[in-house]
Amino acid sequence: MAALSTSRIKEFLELLDGISKHYAAHRPLIQRILNISFILYVLGTTYKGFSARPAPKGQLKRNKDAGNEEGMRRPPRVAVDALFYQRLRHILRIVIPGIRSKEALMLIMHSSLLIARTAISLYVAALDGKIVASLVRAKPLEFAYNIIRWLLVAIPATWTNSWLSYIQSKLAIAYRTRLTDLVMREYLGGKNEAGPEGKVYYKISNLDDRIKNPDQMITHDIQRFSASLAAIYSNLAKPVLDVILYNYQLSQNVGAEGLIGLTILVQLSAALLRSLTPNFGSYTALSAQLAGALRHSHSRLAEFSEEIAFMRGEETEKMLIEREFATIILHERRVLRRRWWFGCVEEGIVKWLWGSFGLVLCAIPVFFKLPGADNIDLGGRTEGFVTNRRLLLSSSDAFGRVMYSYKDLSELAGYTARVSALLETMEDVKTGKFAKALVSSASTEDNAKILQGRGEVFISEDIQFENVPIVTPNGDILVRSLSFKIQPGQHLLIVGPNGCGKSSLFRILGGLWPVYGGVVRKPPASSFILIPQRPYLTIGTLRDQVIYPHSQREMTARGITDDDLFKILQVVQMENVVEREGGWDSMREWRDALSGGDKQKIAWARLFYHNPKYAILDEATSLVPLEMEGRMMDHATKLGITLLTVSHRPSLWKYHAMILHYDGQGGYVFTKLDAEKRLALQTEKQALEAKLADVPRMKARLAELKGF
Amino acid sequence: MAALSTSRIKEFLELLDGISKHYAAHRPLIQRILNISFILYVLGTTYKGFSARPAPKGQLKRNKDAGNEEGMRRPPRVAVDALFYQRLRHILRIVIPGIRSKEALMLIMHSSLLIARTAISLYVAALDGKIVASLVRAKPLEFAYNIIRWLLVAIPATWTNSWLSYIQSKLAIAYRTRLTDLVMREYLGGKNEAGPEGKVYYKISNLDDRIKNPDQMITHDIQRFSASLAAIYSNLAKPVLDVILYNYQLSQNVGAEGLIGLTILVQLSAALLRSLTPNFGSYTALSAQLAGALRHSHSRLAEFSEEIAFMRGEETEKMLIEREFATIILHERRVLRRRWWFGCVEEGIVKWLWGSFGLVLCAIPVFFKLPGADNIDLGGRTEGFVTNRRLLLSSSDAFGRVMYSYKDLSELAGYTARVSALLETMEDVKTGKFAKALVSSASTEDNAKILQGRGEVFISEDIQFENVPIVTPNGDILVRSLSFKIQPGQHLLIVGPNGCGKSSLFRILGGLWPVYGGVVRKPPASSFILIPQRPYLTIGTLRDQVIYPHSQREMTARGITDDDLFKILQVVQMENVVEREGGWDSMREWRDALSGGDKQKIAWARLFYHNPKYAILDEATSLVPLEMEGRMMDHATKLGITLLTVSHRPSLWKYHAMILHYDGQGGYVFTKLDAEKRLALQTEKQALEAKLADVPRMKARLAELKGF
Repeated sequence: MAALSTSRIKEFLELLDGISKHYAAHRPLIQRILNISFILYVLGTTYKGFSARPAPKGQLKRNKDAGNEEGMRRPPRVAVDALFYQRLRHILRIVIPGIRSKEALMLIMHSSLLIARTAISLYVAALDGKIVASLVRAKPLEFAYNIIRWLLVAIPATWTNSWLSYIQSKLAIAYRTRLTDLVMREYLGGKNEAGPEGKVYYKISNLDDRIKNPDQMITHDIQRFSASLAAIYSNLAKPVLDVILYNYQLSQNVGAEGLIGLTILVQLSAALLRSLTPNFGSYTALSAQLAGALRHSHSRLAEFSEEIAFMRGEETEKMLIEREFATIILHERRVLRRRWWFGCVEEGIVKWLWGSFGLVLCAIPVFFKLPGADNIDLGGRTEGFVTNRRLLLSSSDAFGRVMYSYKDLSELAGYTARVSALLETMEDVKTGKFAKALVSSASTEDNAKILQGRGEVFISEDIQFENVPIVTPNGDILVRSLSFKIQPGQHLLIVGPNGCGKSSLFRILGGLWPVYGGVVRKPPASSFILIPQRPYLTIGTLRDQVIYPHSQREMTARGITDDDLFKILQVVQMENVVEREGGWDSMREWRDALSGGDKQKIAWARLFYHNPKYAILDEATSLVPLEMEGRMMDHATKLGITLLTVSHRPSLWKYHAMILHYDGQGGYVFTKLDAEKRLALQTEKQALEAKLADVPRMKARLAELKGF
Repeated sequence: MAALSTSRIKEFLELLDGISKHYAAHRPLIQRILNISFILYVLGTTYKGFSARPAPKGQLKRNKDAGNEEGMRRPPRVAVDALFYQRLRHILRIVIPGIRSKEALMLIMHSSLLIARTAISLYVAALDGKIVASLVRAKPLEFAYNIIRWLLVAIPATWTNSWLSYIQSKLAIAYRTRLTDLVMREYLGGKNEAGPEGKVYYKISNLDDRIKNPDQMITHDIQRFSASLAAIYSNLAKPVLDVILYNYQLSQNVGAEGLIGLTILVQLSAALLRSLTPNFGSYTALSAQLAGALRHSHSRLAEFSEEIAFMRGEETEKMLIEREFATIILHERRVLRRRWWFGCVEEGIVKWLWGSFGLVLCAIPVFFKLPGADNIDLGGRTEGFVTNRRLLLSSSDAFGRVMYSYKDLSELAGYTARVSALLETMEDVKTGKFAKALVSSASTEDNAKILQGRGEVFISEDIQFENVPIVTPNGDILVRSLSFKIQPGQHLLIVGPNGCGKSSLFRILGGLWPVYGGVVRKPPASSFILIPQRPYLTIGTLRDQVIYPHSQREMTARGITDDDLFKILQVVQMENVVEREGGWDSMREWRDALSGGDKQKIAWARLFYHNPKYAILDEATSLVPLEMEGRMMDHATKLGITLLTVSHRPSLWKYHAMILHYDGQGGYVFTKLDAEKRLALQTEKQALEAKLADVPRMKARLAELKGF
């Protein structure tokens, strides 16, 4: 047997040798063509492999994850499809604005370094061969010399690697900065007035449903997208480059013929492997389905636990669930058995058979003198073998990484989808295209007509509404046609139940909401200041709280000093806060440092500082004492600020000249406010209310008595 | 220079050679001791390294994740600490009950296979050396022979590997089965009556707050835990074994002295590296803090967007946020610069310096004849070099894997915590220890006294409550002291507003809720059946719906045939459903297949089938026609079932002898039900109610009119 196979192998080797010699004459040209076509072929299969079918195990894992995800009701994973590439192109134009931009330069540097790294790897592979050769030749000095070369090549190698990861991180930061700048410009940009543009941050939160958490998108998602985009370049470019260069070098070393032979063998056995591969996909789908059924049974059990407990259905339920569990275990065992023998075949082919092909391939230059190669000694042959083997391992490693970069791509696709959603929504919102779930009443013909209309807005000293419908962003029409007029100095009191349209009126005055019809005459939005019940306190110094949104520079430009601010604080009796909190420049989390009443007083101080034409007070005195309330109202009147007040406090009535009373059913009354008469009626009403409030208890008593 | 260093190196090599010869006499003993102590030392450092400080990069990554998590408000990651090991020990005793259990045998098999795999790896390393040696000796036949050995060793190698992953998966399934069995036994086990044990599934959902989603825990979490536990064994055992065996083999090949020398050098340079390592941990903490601050600003912005929009604070906010963003970028850049040079140093030391040490180490047997070793030729030397190098690479790879298995351990810790929580909660719930958020009123002294008490339950034909407090699981006392008595045949009507204690009363009758005081006399829980408004339909045949929770076998044992069932369905006029749905054995998702009224009728059929002493009807006729309702009530009465009815339908009154009327304020009336008189009063009451319902509108009108 052994003798027979020995002579056969010899024959075969001689035959190969003959063929090899035959090629000698035309080799250089043929080989160059072969090399190039081979590398193109390898890259082609690599790309096909990576885009169309990731390795079975990877796929399995992803499907499993998908199954779990379905269980947890996460959103479905975004696919790597045409839409993704389209979105990515759009974002790429933002993060790499041009060929001369910093980012493009960094990418070029990165690519150059990648090439340098691969070149160094090729050198190291050759050096590795030389080290072994010096061992083979038993030359300690040569060995020591090669070790020193090894240590010396470490300098450019580590330098290149460190720069590569440095530039990758820098790229991530650069992308993030570009995107964040753009988003911030759109999100918070534009001091422009009441127009369709600007105030995107407000519109996204209030007029649109698409983005639930802009904070996460602007901070976390953009950062992850940038890191992912910066990483994908090296995760893809490096292995592709490696596959090209290593294979080229390898084909130069061992001859393209050998490499092509190897590739054919690999492709053939891969085809065999594919034909043998069980349909793990369908197994996984079934697994997920069974697991879903089991989980469904468990959640039914929890849902109906009371009735089952009453019926003593435990045993039955246990039997049912155990039967489902047994089905799962049975299925898992069957899959496991199939995977057992497939694992044998797969490892046998991929690791051992392909490994032996590789060894044989690397041995070619040792046993066959390649045409054109010099006569080399034993050490030289070993050197070639070790070098080629290292190249082969690196190449197959790179190949594997290209295959598995699919995972990185789908991660990038996920982040791309989120960043795109943010950009697109901002674009839409900027141009007034809102996506908001409408209330059902919005679809009635009558209401739809109102929602399609647009009103006119004119700049004026007075505030005048003429037949303006008051509509919420979700299409609820609160008042069909509102008309009223107030002049500067005529404080207006606005009353009515919750959700009657008070806030919507303010938003129209502030230029935040669209006017759906009629005519609005009002001063520009900059003439209004809003004080809500819980005023906003900015991050910054105590001074910043009072002058917000002015900066200290703007304050100085207006000719206002800290002493003036102190006087303003004296009006609201908050002057002690300056000393207590450590001066005007002390920084604090003011939201926590100040009480609710103090926050309202600071907001009033802010009003006095800005001294606008109109102030909208939305329960703005609910947490301050009555006499402070009066003090603040009087001071505002003295400054000539016209107040539009929403409040439940009857004590405020006397400051107002006019009243706008919503009935909560779509009607309203606008009239002069006779505070005293109103107060008397209020007292009577309260008495009536008290009487009515007692009715339910009387009723319960009645029912109790009438039970028999 | 070169000449100088050459002579120096020669001197040094001779010196080493001298020392080596000196050892020759006592070498075997010394070496064995050195080998063992060395391996123990390596393992010691490995374990220390792995348990105390994961590599900086890994740590960095985890901290980053932690930062993101904090941003997303996920629960904190569970630590690998004493508590984890304690919990794990507890669960291990469940999944591996004894040394003779299937799981222990599988673990032993797994361990044997692991040893076999490492042995094969050692053989392959030696074979690798031989292949190169045959190349060096230019012996194609030997080369071919070695390639065949390579292909032959593939058979046991793939076999072992496949078995390893097979057994690992089998172990995961075995663990999962053990845990699921135990959990199912506790969760759904025990037909025992009203005692503190049993009905855990009910108690977890209704009486305890700790576990929100038992379905996820019993299905997903147990599965993940089992897979993680089965994987951790090979993830830890294999590299540890590898480190031991490879190093032992390596120390045999190159002499323990060399390996110890290498270890000392590695430790010294590692100490240098550690001393140079910047405090990446604090950088990461600062990164997370800055990112958190930025995100916080963004969410503030979204929260207060309206006020900011009114104040035109965009520019100020933009400036603030951009300043925070700039701080982040500045910090990231600074970290990046530090990481750049540290990357250089780290790669220089770890990859290149240690690599050269390794090469030198592997070269020892080539240049120095080890005492005791035979005279070997060039091929033999190369063989040794290639083998040793492979061993060194595998060993350092295994070392790295032990280091990074920390990640797997913390994942396991997470699942362990969840499974432990499930087991502990079940144990607590079984013994009546409930963790439930109490309503604030539960803490008043008076109520606390009631909650601490326990009442007595006696078995009796009648139902009699004596001074029993009706309490919800969250400590809300609905009725302080309830007393009533009904005898078999006396249908009881229970009325009152929502949340007045009707359900709590049922739960006491069903033995589901604790009795906090007084005396309850009632038949055992098995004498009660509950029909809720939306009855539970089990997974199974049409027959199963009627006889639930009986199985067909139990039905036959009771002497009931399908014909009897058909007659029962005729009572509720549902006999056509048998034909419509395809016979008694047809399976369907009955929840979707039947209408609400049909579900109620099926539940009534179920009641007639089981024919219990008492039936609790909780709005059980709300979806059936009036005449069907009467038919069903009459049939139940005919069967001798005593009904406890909750219903808003006055049409049901006439069937009841007694009424228990809760007033919703803690009071109640228990009396005979005079249906006709009650009906008249009800009509009067309804009229009154209608009138009272109109009051608010009148009031609104009043307010509207009185505004002026």
